[in-house]
Amino acid sequence: MRPNKIKTAWEENRAAVNVFLSTPGSFTAEVMASLGWDGVTVDMQHGVNDYSDLVPMFQGMTRYDPAPMVRVSWNDPAIIMKSLDAGAYGVICPMINTADECEQFVGACRYAPRGYRSTGPIRAVFYAGSDYHDHADNTVLTFAMIETQEAVDNLDGICSVPGLNAVYIGPSDLSVSIGGGPGGDQRTSEVMERIDQTLEAAHRHGIKAGIHAMSAEYANEMVVKGFDLVTLSSDFRHMMGGANAMLAATKLTRD
Amino acid sequence: MRPNKIKTAWEENRAAVNVFLSTPGSFTAEVMASLGWDGVTVDMQHGVNDYSDLVPMFQGMTRYDPAPMVRVSWNDPAIIMKSLDAGAYGVICPMINTADECEQFVGACRYAPRGYRSTGPIRAVFYAGSDYHDHADNTVLTFAMIETQEAVDNLDGICSVPGLNAVYIGPSDLSVSIGGGPGGDQRTSEVMERIDQTLEAAHRHGIKAGIHAMSAEYANEMVVKGFDLVTLSSDFRHMMGGANAMLAATKLTRD
Amino acid sequence: MRPNKIKTAWEENRAAVNVFLSTPGSFTAEVMASLGWDGVTVDMQHGVNDYSDLVPMFQGMTRYDPAPMVRVSWNDPAIIMKSLDAGAYGVICPMINTADECEQFVGACRYAPRGYRSTGPIRAVFYAGSDYHDHADNTVLTFAMIETQEAVDNLDGICSVPGLNAVYIGPSDLSVSIGGGPGGDQRTSEVMERIDQTLEAAHRHGIKAGIHAMSAEYANEMVVKGFDLVTLSSDFRHMMGGANAMLAATKLTRD
Amino acid sequence: MRPNKIKTAWEENRAAVNVFLSTPGSFTAEVMASLGWDGVTVDMQHGVNDYSDLVPMFQGMTRYDPAPMVRVSWNDPAIIMKSLDAGAYGVICPMINTADECEQFVGACRYAPRGYRSTGPIRAVFYAGSDYHDHADNTVLTFAMIETQEAVDNLDGICSVPGLNAVYIGPSDLSVSIGGGPGGDQRTSEVMERIDQTLEAAHRHGIKAGIHAMSAEYANEMVVKGFDLVTLSSDFRHMMGGANAMLAATKLTRD
Amino acid sequence: MRPNKIKTAWEENRAAVNVFLSTPGSFTAEVMASLGWDGVTVDMQHGVNDYSDLVPMFQGMTRYDPAPMVRVSWNDPAIIMKSLDAGAYGVICPMINTADECEQFVGACRYAPRGYRSTGPIRAVFYAGSDYHDHADNTVLTFAMIETQEAVDNLDGICSVPGLNAVYIGPSDLSVSIGGGPGGDQRTSEVMERIDQTLEAAHRHGIKAGIHAMSAEYANEMVVKGFDLVTLSSDFRHMMGGANAMLAATKLTRD
Amino acid sequence: MRPNKIKTAWEENRAAVNVFLSTPGSFTAEVMASLGWDGVTVDMQHGVNDYSDLVPMFQGMTRYDPAPMVRVSWNDPAIIMKSLDAGAYGVICPMINTADECEQFVGACRYAPRGYRSTGPIRAVFYAGSDYHDHADNTVLTFAMIETQEAVDNLDGICSVPGLNAVYIGPSDLSVSIGGGPGGDQRTSEVMERIDQTLEAAHRHGIKAGIHAMSAEYANEMVVKGFDLVTLSSDFRHMMGGANAMLAATKLTRD
Repeated sequence: MRPNKIKTAWEENRAAVNVFLSTPGSFTAEVMASLGWDGVTVDMQHGVNDYSDLVPMFQGMTRYDPAPMVRVSWNDPAIIMKSLDAGAYGVICPMINTADECEQFVGACRYAPRGYRSTGPIRAVFYAGSDYHDHADNTVLTFAMIETQEAVDNLDGICSVPGLNAVYIGPSDLSVSIGGGPGGDQRTSEVMERIDQTLEAAHRHGIKAGIHAMSAEYANEMVVKGFDLVTLSSDFRHMMGGANAMLAATKLTRD
Repeated sequence: MRPNKIKTAWEENRAAVNVFLSTPGSFTAEVMASLGWDGVTVDMQHGVNDYSDLVPMFQGMTRYDPAPMVRVSWNDPAIIMKSLDAGAYGVICPMINTADECEQFVGACRYAPRGYRSTGPIRAVFYAGSDYHDHADNTVLTFAMIETQEAVDNLDGICSVPGLNAVYIGPSDLSVSIGGGPGGDQRTSEVMERIDQTLEAAHRHGIKAGIHAMSAEYANEMVVKGFDLVTLSSDFRHMMGGANAMLAATKLTRD
Repeated sequence: MRPNKIKTAWEENRAAVNVFLSTPGSFTAEVMASLGWDGVTVDMQHGVNDYSDLVPMFQGMTRYDPAPMVRVSWNDPAIIMKSLDAGAYGVICPMINTADECEQFVGACRYAPRGYRSTGPIRAVFYAGSDYHDHADNTVLTFAMIETQEAVDNLDGICSVPGLNAVYIGPSDLSVSIGGGPGGDQRTSEVMERIDQTLEAAHRHGIKAGIHAMSAEYANEMVVKGFDLVTLSSDFRHMMGGANAMLAATKLTRD
Repeated sequence: MRPNKIKTAWEENRAAVNVFLSTPGSFTAEVMASLGWDGVTVDMQHGVNDYSDLVPMFQGMTRYDPAPMVRVSWNDPAIIMKSLDAGAYGVICPMINTADECEQFVGACRYAPRGYRSTGPIRAVFYAGSDYHDHADNTVLTFAMIETQEAVDNLDGICSVPGLNAVYIGPSDLSVSIGGGPGGDQRTSEVMERIDQTLEAAHRHGIKAGIHAMSAEYANEMVVKGFDLVTLSSDFRHMMGGANAMLAATKLTRD
Repeated sequence: MRPNKIKTAWEENRAAVNVFLSTPGSFTAEVMASLGWDGVTVDMQHGVNDYSDLVPMFQGMTRYDPAPMVRVSWNDPAIIMKSLDAGAYGVICPMINTADECEQFVGACRYAPRGYRSTGPIRAVFYAGSDYHDHADNTVLTFAMIETQEAVDNLDGICSVPGLNAVYIGPSDLSVSIGGGPGGDQRTSEVMERIDQTLEAAHRHGIKAGIHAMSAEYANEMVVKGFDLVTLSSDFRHMMGGANAMLAATKLTRD
Repeated sequence: MRPNKIKTAWEENRAAVNVFLSTPGSFTAEVMASLGWDGVTVDMQHGVNDYSDLVPMFQGMTRYDPAPMVRVSWNDPAIIMKSLDAGAYGVICPMINTADECEQFVGACRYAPRGYRSTGPIRAVFYAGSDYHDHADNTVLTFAMIETQEAVDNLDGICSVPGLNAVYIGPSDLSVSIGGGPGGDQRTSEVMERIDQTLEAAHRHGIKAGIHAMSAEYANEMVVKGFDLVTLSSDFRHMMGGANAMLAATKLTRD
């Protein structure tokens, strides 16, 4: 089975770097996959993507080596299993607030006896290889999103669920959940405290921790803190960033 | 009829700024249209776009004010007229090498008696207004691409075609045509000489001149030279630029 | 934030008029949006629409002022939140039979502390404005469908859920639920009685009431009764209506 | 081979009735096909349709009996042959101005020795039957659009092309071509004169004549004149007509 | 209402033959539907299909007589009801492990008072006829998948749910569930024993039993055992089978 | 630049084996590409494919090594150049009847000074590598279809066009062109004679010859004759072949 580059990064004892694809399109997926990430995540929650976009996007990434990942729209076995059958090597699940929710999520990602995933990895075998069934449970990574106070309160339970590989922090939702404002790269002490708690709990339970970043500065801080995976913003934000930079440097008047 | 922002720029005596959309998708079109360009051009020649992508992309731009433009795949009345019916306010036509080819192109963009465009602006009236037919010939801009030695040799004939609004230089093809290498922002003296000839001929015939740029530096030089429109690269190149910059600024090792 | 035209209608003390889009397609969405409705609702329950149709349809409506609305397929936070992120200004949720179901529905439409909606309004900010987060909870309208006897029995509980803006009656399902036949514009006394009960309960609890109509006559009766919103059939039924009328008026024989 | 209902209408000595589909979508195609037309024409010239829309639209029509027709975007063998392979039973070709253009058009619709159509009716055999090749040349109808003064001047040459089944008048383009305004149902004496000339020439050469109508009144007049086929407007115009009628009959104020 | 060919097969006292469509595409659906099956099932669980693929696929099948069926991705009323409104004549629901789950499934397929399906069969009436509502509950077949040990343990409860027409065995999941390996055509005594139990329970409760087969040999054995429906693999596996056979028979060297 | 497997086959002194994809869909393209062909050709002439299908289909093939090829709908530089920019390693062009037509075709496939292809290989560089421009003219194969008597008469002129790599025979059109019936694997002496002439002319001019086959028998005969490339039917025909074989082997009655 084709290896998971995020796992390779961890075996190399460095943080993995991930990016979100918020816009549908197999060509931009191919372009983005060529840039050197460890993971590229099709965002079906807040991104403008649906299942029918996922397969061509994963196919577009195939020539390159980042782990094809998905953030599902919700903790729903239907879309989790369909994403895995399409070849996802990792699933980020939003709004995991309790150990029960975490078990339902992780179970959908694992074959019996570890879970209740149905067999039929229709495209996964073409991407991963014919030995997919034997290695899938060990290759596919599960990320539970910690983004509410309730989730922070239940960290020990969530992190104890067998088969969970990592937690993943959404700073914007976490901030809103505790009465702050939305937006990325939250630095209030209230948010920072919960980020630290989450990181500590994950490592104490022997699992990894990832976090969403909107800037290299925030990502770098999080790597220094000990995070194992950072997501560097998303495709359309990079497009806006590149375009705005060139626009600002162009002078259209001749006087 | 809704005004054409590129014409407005020219009335304000400044160069217009344009960008290419090379990737299909109405969401990225909406995002890009929000950034302040004078024109946004769906590239159906070298971009990964077809007619069925065009309409939703134009709809995505509708809330913002850049002129919706198209680069057609070839000098073919079918796709030119379909693009105009979809609401294009400008057409960039590749590989116009002779006055005859230019007449065929411009004629497809104009209603009788100025040309042979067929009536039926199905979506254009919803975008532009119900007075579309009366003002279309004066609002829709025609750009003939000058990108071969043959075209340079025929500049006077091409620039004399009634109804042609501008020439548009593709530096990469122009370079290859005269024995140079491909790529943007060509600065060899052979290419520069032909760029100057083209600009001079256009202005002498009372029409405008546009050029493709891959960097703000090149665009600025061309504005200083007197170009009336510069295109600042394209959506997916901006995406790569933004992503590469953030990747380079991120440090994944903790030593 | 761009205003919600349905709320404006209510502030002007008149009934709002809505229409359903049952067929996918951004062009027909643009055409329909141009006709003067207060709301235009993409029907993802019984319409032939899925999430991937929704975004271009909303983009097609953008130039015009009706509130972009959605009827979701079911009371499921995944599709409710994705629709809101796409720019929906109102959500009609089918089959709300209990106060608990209503709370789950309304909570998915509101940010903390009013609900559990996740932040990330990817397209909504381009449509509504960058102040979206601050005003979304007050601008987005929530409609709970009352279409079973169980729902009628639970009207007080349903109408008491904080954040619910309106009930919405589906006369066909309501009729079937109590042993009648399907179809629009139900006028049996059994259905009428429940319509009156629902309208009365809504107004008593200080919320609005809407209803589906298949004819202007039924809509007019409901406005007179006091309904605050009427839906006038749907896109493809209007197409059939217009086509059948012209067909009937055409005489193909020459004798 | 499944029969062509337009030919059946002509054998029954009545005018055939046709409608245009301007908007993509297989569901609306199925709905429209159910209403009783003799032909339903996917408009790829001014409609928002491309080849990739055509096949599902034709499939949607399959259960009903109208002849599946196409108006191609231009006199181009590629799209004509692809439409026929998709199962088109008739092709309306715009802007046929000379006998040579007509020969090129008709030749693309006929197998050798009558024309140069390439064999490979991939979907047509599933729709029409396995004896498709033997009967296609006699079943597929060819309509040359007469919509310029040049075409009127060349009527005898055009109508003499072997294999041409009918002319088809576009009154809006015909009007613009001779200096009038655009729009359907043209009644100026200048246009009427050319309509009469065209009808007379067609019948004198033993072929049929069709015309586009925007109202039943105009269609009825044309049937009385002797036209053999009338098109009654298009899908989205029927949608607007039906919606506007219901909107106008609805009263939203309660005073 | 158009009859259900699977029911017809059963009335003729023979096993029905079904096939899965795992790949999206209305043309392959039309091709497959032409081959003589009793049912053709769009697989939205392990197939690469989503709802937006379903409608054109069903339209593609319309000319032919197999019952249009669907395997839904999960026991979710949203997708079950949308599939039925699209014209599904049968629903195969995965992972039915308890009587409660079975009731939720069957209820979503039946109108009140037999279930809680919402009225609005938008495309179904065009496929099935205007009397759809009256006959739908008797025409639409419900298949509960038995594919875990838990389901086998609960066979009596599951088979007793009113409105359930059949069980359907997935041998691969059933094998994995009891500690075996994945793959079709399982013949271990452990699996065979549960297949026999399931068949016996279904027939004892007066309902039918279907099973998935990857080869004609396995299908024939199951028909002999008494199964009422066999599925013969899927579209893309037949494509691979046909292609591999021809490749193997071709000799590319000339020595 | 990634090598062209068809050229590799020829360097290994064996015939290359190709297959046509007639149905759109990136998943079936991936599946087919995995089976071991030297080339996989997206058929945009008689197949149900358009440009917007091409890019995801090519992406689907990327993981495997067959040369991604295209048969264009017609000898049109727009679609030829767009296909090449999408990554096509070979172009089969229908209906090349004269040397002039052949020059127009080959010129569209080659950069200056060998042809007039416009630079901008947007996706090709991601598939082939960043040195694409330097090697494209030597890697991309051009196949001119010989399928009329006129083409046979002009074989010497056609085969002499610099840059043409091969002729490709379409036996069905060739047969129809000389008064025979349609269909694959033509064996009449009239067709065989022209096949031999074509093969002889190609080899005499130092170029290759390919032919379409519907069976392994015909392909084997053609390899023995000396053909350098055989196409083994197409995706949907393999699907029908596989399905019909399994259906025929299944016995549904129990008597």
